[in-house]
Amino acid sequence: MKSDLDALMKARELDALLVFGDAEQNPPMYYFVGGGHVSAALLIKKTGKEPVLFYNDMEREEAAKSRLKTVSFSEFPITDFQKQANGDFQTAYAFQLQKILSEYELSGGRVAVYGKVELSQLFGVIMKLASLMPELEFIGESSLDSVILRAMETKDDVEVARIRQMGAVTTTIVKMIQDYLTSREVRDDEVLLKEDGYPLTIGDVKSKISLWLAERGAVDVEGTIFAIGHDAGVPHSVGTPEDLVTLGKTIVFDIFPAEQGGGYFYDFTRTWSLGYATPEAQALYDQVHEIYNKVVENLDLNASFIDYQRMTCEYFESKGHKTQLNTKAPLDGYVHGLGHGVGINIHERPWSGLTASEDNILKPGVVITIEPGLYYPEKGMGVRIEDTYWVRPDGKIELLAEYPYDFVLPMKKWKKE
Amino acid sequence: MKSDLDALMKARELDALLVFGDAEQNPPMYYFVGGGHVSAALLIKKTGKEPVLFYNDMEREEAAKSRLKTVSFSEFPITDFQKQANGDFQTAYAFQLQKILSEYELSGGRVAVYGKVELSQLFGVIMKLASLMPELEFIGESSLDSVILRAMETKDDVEVARIRQMGAVTTTIVKMIQDYLTSREVRDDEVLLKEDGYPLTIGDVKSKISLWLAERGAVDVEGTIFAIGHDAGVPHSVGTPEDLVTLGKTIVFDIFPAEQGGGYFYDFTRTWSLGYATPEAQALYDQVHEIYNKVVENLDLNASFIDYQRMTCEYFESKGHKTQLNTKAPLDGYVHGLGHGVGINIHERPWSGLTASEDNILKPGVVITIEPGLYYPEKGMGVRIEDTYWVRPDGKIELLAEYPYDFVLPMKKWKKE
Repeated sequence: MKSDLDALMKARELDALLVFGDAEQNPPMYYFVGGGHVSAALLIKKTGKEPVLFYNDMEREEAAKSRLKTVSFSEFPITDFQKQANGDFQTAYAFQLQKILSEYELSGGRVAVYGKVELSQLFGVIMKLASLMPELEFIGESSLDSVILRAMETKDDVEVARIRQMGAVTTTIVKMIQDYLTSREVRDDEVLLKEDGYPLTIGDVKSKISLWLAERGAVDVEGTIFAIGHDAGVPHSVGTPEDLVTLGKTIVFDIFPAEQGGGYFYDFTRTWSLGYATPEAQALYDQVHEIYNKVVENLDLNASFIDYQRMTCEYFESKGHKTQLNTKAPLDGYVHGLGHGVGINIHERPWSGLTASEDNILKPGVVITIEPGLYYPEKGMGVRIEDTYWVRPDGKIELLAEYPYDFVLPMKKWKKE
Repeated sequence: MKSDLDALMKARELDALLVFGDAEQNPPMYYFVGGGHVSAALLIKKTGKEPVLFYNDMEREEAAKSRLKTVSFSEFPITDFQKQANGDFQTAYAFQLQKILSEYELSGGRVAVYGKVELSQLFGVIMKLASLMPELEFIGESSLDSVILRAMETKDDVEVARIRQMGAVTTTIVKMIQDYLTSREVRDDEVLLKEDGYPLTIGDVKSKISLWLAERGAVDVEGTIFAIGHDAGVPHSVGTPEDLVTLGKTIVFDIFPAEQGGGYFYDFTRTWSLGYATPEAQALYDQVHEIYNKVVENLDLNASFIDYQRMTCEYFESKGHKTQLNTKAPLDGYVHGLGHGVGINIHERPWSGLTASEDNILKPGVVITIEPGLYYPEKGMGVRIEDTYWVRPDGKIELLAEYPYDFVLPMKKWKKE
């Protein structure tokens, strides 16, 4: 939690964090500022001190909404530094930062830098700043294990409530899509038809998802996965817009909407086969569902996340599938990690991959996905089941949004002969 | 244009560009890859060579859609480097990059880095890579003037067609909002009412904008500005959701939607006063409209963009307003630049600010905004007019989406007594 940040910084001997960039679509800045139209800002968090947000004058009211201590960049006018920098913009910016850091008594020590920003500009500026202030050491922490990700790893009640609310939006949309699909007329070649009699495409379904999310104040910033057949067999294929929605093929529906403006995510997947399923697809589904249930039943407070990845790999290998346990980078079988933390980042700590460190623990406050899957693109099929769970302060592990696990969805106007 | 990139790289003695990150919401990567669900990728563009895209196996099909030369990271398995790196993730990544760069014959020279990414991770990795490969010099170019922004600055016909299409979406939505607002019933206190009889809020209007954009495959990634009264007087205030839509107050409606997935933007602003306008607001509007027209009439092929900023400042100062010409960081009057380039970035070259360099030129292929404005937050008013223009290959300067410049919008069911 954010309140852990000072202890985390002390443990790593960091004297300050500098966060650059916008307040939206920028997880570390959003974490402090809470969103809003605050762009090209700077946040300084010194160990043991409240953070200070530097903003551009035009955005003073948006900056004030953060309720942080705020300072206008115009107190350090960039124009003052441009002559000194012979008109070089990056050098002027480095002089400005030097002045700000000196004013805030950061003239020595270890300073970690963050922010989802254009690398070229900030890399150039920080290198210039480092040469201006050799007494500062600039640190770029790992994206697996920065102090900010460590703080974000455990959520407070307000954060969990926001994730849960996105979960409610998610399952509402999934139900609407399920009802829409199962109510369609079906052509002789088992293609679903739209209201206007034309074939229903993956693109049509995805438009509805975006629209229905927007109506509920949510966005699929990173794009929903709604993939059928072959595409369902490639875990990160988002689906081909022109593909037709057809009976009897696996459909992987992985939806991970976020609050508008770059806030909290929810992460959820169901696999469906409309009307009927092939025996081979049904067998894959049953296995994924079985290990999903086994993992969920065995989730323990303070267990290591990786143990469940191992359990899942062992189960799938016992059924004859390739996994990362004994195959390097498998292209079919079980090809990914079991889950990940979810918050302002769609993927964050704790990690479940076999190469993740043992300190990725199911401790109180973490919110994680459990998402086993099997993928056979050459056979035109893939299956994944995913839900988001919260490890509560009392140690119980709670599903944040319930939804049925039906694989075959009966069509209301069509029956298998 | 992209075809200028090799010449631009040679002029700056760059041997290669490294672009990091996702293909979406990441302008430099989008520029090469064209979007899609390709995450944590790497693109290497050597001077005089075709770019090569490195992808993660799970995203092989999405990567292939780029039609670039693609290589899987699994040819350089990260697990091979983890032992060598004693399990340190950033060091393993640096070893992997070293191997990739060596394989692609980049063992010396000047390499510029790009990508909208989490700074902490990449800053750390590049510092480690620089120590592994001291014969390479890593460059972070300015966000005002990188070779990629120089290439992006001029658009080809396909890019202009996409911006124009976003312009058509934009004016369609603006017209729908105008019709919606002017059709409302009005309460005695001049507050507009929704269909259900409750007061219409800024938040209600913004929900409609998001929704209607989503229906047309567009998104307001960075948030539409729909700001009334005081908020209209603060250029980058996005508006307060709870504010009521009321007659006789300035409403600044600045809408800048992008293609879904992080593609091309359009940028557009109108200022309205519903039912009637106060004489003071009307006077502000008339001045902004007058200088807008004067600038547009005088736009010349190959003129310096800054000249029009100077023209605008001089005009507004002649009318008694503060501007950046003679006031440092004014908080009212004319407080921002006249315009900017528009493309995959909402703000890009050419720049119009008084401190921009003289090589920000209206050359063939640029797409720019013209957006003078006046702001008086203490008086509860602000005005801005903005359109997007293309400097065509034949030297003519073309408005990309037409829309009327009415300030007072008559209400259909209400008349001033």
